[in-house]
Amino acid sequence: MAKSSDAKGLTPRAQDYPQWYQDVIREADLAEPAKVVKGCMVIKPYGYAIWEKIQRELDARFKDTGHSNAYFPMLVPQSFITKEAEHVEGFAPELAVVTHAGGEKLEEPYVIRPTSETIIGHFFAKWISSYRDLPMLINQWANVVRWELRTRMFLRTTEFLWQEGHTAHANHAEARSEVARMLDVYGDFARDVMAMPVIRGIKTETEKFAGAHESWCIEALMQDGKALQAGTSHDLGQNFGKAFDVKFQREDGELDYGWQTSWGVSTRLVGGLVMTHSDDAGLVLPPRLAPIHAIIVPIYKNDEQRARVMEAAERIKRTMQDIDFSDPRCRYRDFLTVEIDDRDMRPGAKFYHWERRGVPMRIELGPRDLDKGQICVKMRTGGDGKKEFLPEAEFLGSVRQRIDDYQQMLLDAAEQRMADRTVTLDTWEEFMAAFGNDDSTFAWCHWDGTKETEAAIKAATKVTVRCIPLPGQGPAPEPGLCIKSGRPSTQRVLMAKAY
Amino acid sequence: MAKSSDAKGLTPRAQDYPQWYQDVIREADLAEPAKVVKGCMVIKPYGYAIWEKIQRELDARFKDTGHSNAYFPMLVPQSFITKEAEHVEGFAPELAVVTHAGGEKLEEPYVIRPTSETIIGHFFAKWISSYRDLPMLINQWANVVRWELRTRMFLRTTEFLWQEGHTAHANHAEARSEVARMLDVYGDFARDVMAMPVIRGIKTETEKFAGAHESWCIEALMQDGKALQAGTSHDLGQNFGKAFDVKFQREDGELDYGWQTSWGVSTRLVGGLVMTHSDDAGLVLPPRLAPIHAIIVPIYKNDEQRARVMEAAERIKRTMQDIDFSDPRCRYRDFLTVEIDDRDMRPGAKFYHWERRGVPMRIELGPRDLDKGQICVKMRTGGDGKKEFLPEAEFLGSVRQRIDDYQQMLLDAAEQRMADRTVTLDTWEEFMAAFGNDDSTFAWCHWDGTKETEAAIKAATKVTVRCIPLPGQGPAPEPGLCIKSGRPSTQRVLMAKAY
Repeated sequence: MAKSSDAKGLTPRAQDYPQWYQDVIREADLAEPAKVVKGCMVIKPYGYAIWEKIQRELDARFKDTGHSNAYFPMLVPQSFITKEAEHVEGFAPELAVVTHAGGEKLEEPYVIRPTSETIIGHFFAKWISSYRDLPMLINQWANVVRWELRTRMFLRTTEFLWQEGHTAHANHAEARSEVARMLDVYGDFARDVMAMPVIRGIKTETEKFAGAHESWCIEALMQDGKALQAGTSHDLGQNFGKAFDVKFQREDGELDYGWQTSWGVSTRLVGGLVMTHSDDAGLVLPPRLAPIHAIIVPIYKNDEQRARVMEAAERIKRTMQDIDFSDPRCRYRDFLTVEIDDRDMRPGAKFYHWERRGVPMRIELGPRDLDKGQICVKMRTGGDGKKEFLPEAEFLGSVRQRIDDYQQMLLDAAEQRMADRTVTLDTWEEFMAAFGNDDSTFAWCHWDGTKETEAAIKAATKVTVRCIPLPGQGPAPEPGLCIKSGRPSTQRVLMAKAY
Repeated sequence: MAKSSDAKGLTPRAQDYPQWYQDVIREADLAEPAKVVKGCMVIKPYGYAIWEKIQRELDARFKDTGHSNAYFPMLVPQSFITKEAEHVEGFAPELAVVTHAGGEKLEEPYVIRPTSETIIGHFFAKWISSYRDLPMLINQWANVVRWELRTRMFLRTTEFLWQEGHTAHANHAEARSEVARMLDVYGDFARDVMAMPVIRGIKTETEKFAGAHESWCIEALMQDGKALQAGTSHDLGQNFGKAFDVKFQREDGELDYGWQTSWGVSTRLVGGLVMTHSDDAGLVLPPRLAPIHAIIVPIYKNDEQRARVMEAAERIKRTMQDIDFSDPRCRYRDFLTVEIDDRDMRPGAKFYHWERRGVPMRIELGPRDLDKGQICVKMRTGGDGKKEFLPEAEFLGSVRQRIDDYQQMLLDAAEQRMADRTVTLDTWEEFMAAFGNDDSTFAWCHWDGTKETEAAIKAATKVTVRCIPLPGQGPAPEPGLCIKSGRPSTQRVLMAKAY
């Protein structure tokens, strides 16, 4: 751990939020820029362990909703991308192209998938011929490549890891139910697992996925007031069905094209996690995604004390590791992860080390604690930063509740921040005041529904329409006047600067 | 399921083994050739579910042996590949090259990783500076691309999924311990989970990994007598350490290069599974890797019977699904997976459907069984193909044992076949007789240890030295004369034709 302990410290958020973000990732050893591969990063073990937890929780929810995992080729014939007009327009500028392989120039180049609607559309056409083959509910865990100009660790990298669901249905209504169902899976996951509240809504024409009929999304509020698009669920209509000839016989005997959806979340979620919970002391993690739930730091001055303290530490670790931490929805059972840090370092350095890594619970264990039969426990954040001293049995009996309370506390704090940072704006002056300089916030505003006004707002302020809220996700629809053009509007939409 | 039930039937093994292999994969709906992407395949949900089980079991074993997962970029600067002389020689002909991205020609092309020693070597050099940073124990689950001339589903595809372990150590002895430890993880997994016995050994210079000091391997015997290299564990010596300048300060203060290992298994294992257990009726799966352990087929003639039978089926399913099927080594708990096939099809068609998919246990449930309080159970293979009729409680109490016995039976059968198909050959006449036509077998033969003889044997018969056995994995070393050259040899080696 020598190199990773070359701590450079953390820039305070108030001083430079983007630098703080990079610092948290470096100090928690989540990832580092690859440098030698443009816009890519290496996801280091601690960061990858968080991604594995995200994967496992989401994967269980996808299976619970009837989906199966499969795997499609990463290389896509270049001609496939051009088959859907809007799709190629959106993705052509970002493609990485394989022109040579096996020592020869290829007759037709392949692109590395930027997303898999095209290659999967091709196979859906082979697999689907009758309504009896529908719905087809597939998910894929994969890497994709998009040649982005500006990249930022986790939030936007040239290569990233994600899951992409692809489904086909017999009619539009069923496809739309799927779009809504998966958006709810994402929204519930964000809230219940990531402790990250989100607004669920629909993208404007300008912001929708290239090739979609309609894109639904979840938008989260980061600490700096900017929005993070954290997941999308697309109603593809029959666009890809027609482009790839996904024809099927309906129950009434007529031929029709498949109604498709796609939906995805990515390693970007790790960035959202950082910018939702972390503080000036480093990473803060919700227990549901923490690779380590509790760290025990033994404190001793000599070998005799060490033997005694380590024996107690091992006993406490064993007891805690048997505490069931299963997700009630899943058919596997899970347990708490507890580690003992017995490295040859000062306790203070260990505290600092694990704080920066966001381990929810720290237990200090010294001879005096053992004499008193007590445990010294401190949570990473909350509770006024105080240590608590508890009889061992009482502590052990309270662990699960403490962990659950901590998860809830992080959610409460994030929800409170969202409430505090969400405003309703009615005039362009208010708007400019809210979004001046580098400021951002969640703002409910009237908008006239045109691309022109959207573009004008973006040009003036970098603010975009994040989404048109789904029912219950924003202010109740009421007529008003567009914040920019003054033209009539039927409901407020969510506006913010975005990552 | 309409399209997938367009059964074309299975070619008998005795008639055309390679065609049978393709047929089993098609009929079990494991995968299909991508066709539009050269040499690639689509892994379909049922095949991917087997791969997920392989991943989960292996991943737990990697973590138990101290490894952490991470993720490195898929794109590797072309110059990296050339840094290790043997490595570039071995892999250059198989590379896929990205020359254009983001609409522009790249200054330096990237290759899609054929394996990640080079890019990981680059980061090890950044992360390792002292013996205190060692050992570094990393694993990556990833896709790789190798432009192969001849491909075959699962066994050799242009893109494939795998895991690649990469470790760095302070000295050669520790690195060699790691090589041996991970070979044992693979060998134990093959035997205990896949029910596939293997020979553990060391590759010859000709067959070793390009860039390795020494390659260790597990070799399995397929039903047609051919060998399948099922996993490799490489002692990289300091080759990549020197190529990527992975320098560190030893405990004695001297500077040295890291001693590295790499080890991997891939989706090829699914092909090995097929060719170890399956029969002329289709796929046969060991329960430890079966996506579905038991299928319940309800049998009824009218709605009244259906209601009664389905109620019982649901009850039995619930009871069976609560049967703990955890791997004793893992910290998660697992359960049996049971499904009821209530499709509108004849029972016979359902039996055939699930047989081809290798579901270990079939339960038939009709009104007469319910009248008698009995369960009709049939295992996919073994037990003379007979149905057994058992009182429900007795059956339910025996399920776990039956599943375990079935796993053991498959291993016993595979071990028996390996014993039957392994010969000791002493003369070239015997050798030519054993390997004539398309025949193959596992043969222990003396070999003079030269590349020339190895090449001559291969040219004459397509037979290669699969491995030099580790102690206890083959006949005890004794001097003899090379089967081809007649020159002296110190021990017998394993020879076979190979996939």
